[in-house]
Amino acid sequence: MKINGKNYQTIWLDEDDRGIVRVIDQQKLPFFLEIKDLRTVDDVFYAIRNMTVRGAPLIGAAGAFGIYLATLDPAFRKDNKFIEKAAGLLISARPTAVNLAWAVNFVLERLKKNNSGSTAPEIALKAALDICETEKENCRRIGVHGLALIEKLSREKNGKPVNILTHCNAGWLACIDYGTATAPIYMAYDRGISLHVWVDETRPANQGARLTVFELGSYGVPCTLITDNCGGHLMQQKEVDIVIVGSDRTARNGDSANKIGTYLKALAAWDNGISFYVALPTTSIDPGIADGMKEIPVELRSGNEVTTVSGFAEGRIQQVRICPENTVAMNWSFDVTPARLITGLITEKGICRASEEDITDLFSDKQK
Amino acid sequence: MKINGKNYQTIWLDEDDRGIVRVIDQQKLPFFLEIKDLRTVDDVFYAIRNMTVRGAPLIGAAGAFGIYLATLDPAFRKDNKFIEKAAGLLISARPTAVNLAWAVNFVLERLKKNNSGSTAPEIALKAALDICETEKENCRRIGVHGLALIEKLSREKNGKPVNILTHCNAGWLACIDYGTATAPIYMAYDRGISLHVWVDETRPANQGARLTVFELGSYGVPCTLITDNCGGHLMQQKEVDIVIVGSDRTARNGDSANKIGTYLKALAAWDNGISFYVALPTTSIDPGIADGMKEIPVELRSGNEVTTVSGFAEGRIQQVRICPENTVAMNWSFDVTPARLITGLITEKGICRASEEDITDLFSDKQK
Repeated sequence: MKINGKNYQTIWLDEDDRGIVRVIDQQKLPFFLEIKDLRTVDDVFYAIRNMTVRGAPLIGAAGAFGIYLATLDPAFRKDNKFIEKAAGLLISARPTAVNLAWAVNFVLERLKKNNSGSTAPEIALKAALDICETEKENCRRIGVHGLALIEKLSREKNGKPVNILTHCNAGWLACIDYGTATAPIYMAYDRGISLHVWVDETRPANQGARLTVFELGSYGVPCTLITDNCGGHLMQQKEVDIVIVGSDRTARNGDSANKIGTYLKALAAWDNGISFYVALPTTSIDPGIADGMKEIPVELRSGNEVTTVSGFAEGRIQQVRICPENTVAMNWSFDVTPARLITGLITEKGICRASEEDITDLFSDKQK
Repeated sequence: MKINGKNYQTIWLDEDDRGIVRVIDQQKLPFFLEIKDLRTVDDVFYAIRNMTVRGAPLIGAAGAFGIYLATLDPAFRKDNKFIEKAAGLLISARPTAVNLAWAVNFVLERLKKNNSGSTAPEIALKAALDICETEKENCRRIGVHGLALIEKLSREKNGKPVNILTHCNAGWLACIDYGTATAPIYMAYDRGISLHVWVDETRPANQGARLTVFELGSYGVPCTLITDNCGGHLMQQKEVDIVIVGSDRTARNGDSANKIGTYLKALAAWDNGISFYVALPTTSIDPGIADGMKEIPVELRSGNEVTTVSGFAEGRIQQVRICPENTVAMNWSFDVTPARLITGLITEKGICRASEEDITDLFSDKQK
């Protein structure tokens, strides 16, 4: 997507030096647009761990590129366990999103099955690029399917702006391009449908305030920043027509893990009769998890993210402490929204109910 | 209550100069403990408007002292509309809390009924001090009644820590002393009941992170700071035994306006079968409002509170911007929690259901 008129993806291979994977440093956005070079598995691990890259589809792609960089490492030829150790390290960087393990294992499988005569780096790179292309195409298709929902609301409102609420950043910055929750929004905007987005700031890391407002604004989509506390009131006042969020991992039964606070918005939508949709590629569905509420691991990150806030002042990014010194803080990063509160899943294969039956149908369709 | 071993109230008359009302500057807490002098009606207006003082009972008391200061103004003798204009200004400072108008009118009434031979300043001061004493006593009684709930939970948990979640600051800093939501907590803590408080940071002004953590910590009560997004997950995990919040205005039907985001916590408590109590003096009940959802005015404050965060860095209070420049933000300060989600009201007169019937009983009791 475009930033200041120039097209970007969130991750790409350097054109000149094929030993460098380049990413937009999302910790610096929206204050600085900086590109970071990743040259080693460790670089990728820390980029994922420190949220230089974040968002389920993007950390999957980054993990895949991490395996590619591992195949370029001299240790790869000397140590036949090197690639497995690299995979283990990468997968450990963030526990909640299923895409990371999925993408890393996808590249490993391609390497194992190699009977093409290509080198390991060639195979791993091809696999990583394939993941990127697939994710882009999936997001585009999520946009096509989700567009129908927004078009319907627009008709029902006789062309008055459709108000969409989103939490965190499930935008193109979380993916390779288009985004998941934002793909229908961009597509509706491109069609000239009048719409407006309420963006939750999404504490503690403020991905909504920093990234979603930035990317929607850069594209020209009207949006308003609100605190995470505000969405319930807006829904009571009927100022929200539809909620669309992303997913880091959706279980077979439809329970969906997403950024902490998503569950509260799902409750408010339910209480006010507003549709609540989860937009996700089917790679974010984990068929190995039967009951999301019980089985999806929820990442506990450092309390420092809660006791401090990063922002821009006096020409630089600064961190301020918002509470007394030595405050104890806890920082669960995700919550799980039970399927009963989810109106539907918007996937690249179409929209389905958040139920085991519908999800199983999606997967069997996949294998046709 | 004590700060660093010294006893404070939130508002008091200077001992030497009876033309000065002194308050703790709550915008500077917890980073600096500064006392601010209020000498005029305008000083009081801005102190309320800018949240130097905040919290429904405290802004009521401040408004009452504002009328006292008005009676000391030379304009009071020259302009027989002066006191009414002062009252109008003070009441306009914050629209949601009912206590402000109630307290200002209480002092006006005392002035009108004056047949004691006392001077206007003497009467107004006595009225303001009476309000302070009544609020303190009300908070103490709220503590006594709420204590029983915590004791019961402690017994049910065989003495394991009772986990209480609170939103914003309905502590002694919001009142004159003891607090509303915190009064039962302090009382239980004093009795040696094992407990722990989850404190929502409460964006945008972070009263939870700045004030509630500060006052609970200063008293020694174990507490943990969390983001506003986190409470739903904690309730799903049964890490919360009871929610206790304050109220800025409760309608005759039990609907309660409190800091934005309270409604989301009430939904989560309801969804997880956890008790949700609103602690308030009956002065925060507005019998003139039949339907809180429809009739309680909700203050819309400046979007700057959303686009920026204040905190401590490099030895001073600094403000950082958390989003792109020129971001549009909206900032509703309160939401209304419907009575159906409220387990009960903890008042100085006892605990009752959040229903018109029970509230009417409370008020008729008042008139006995």
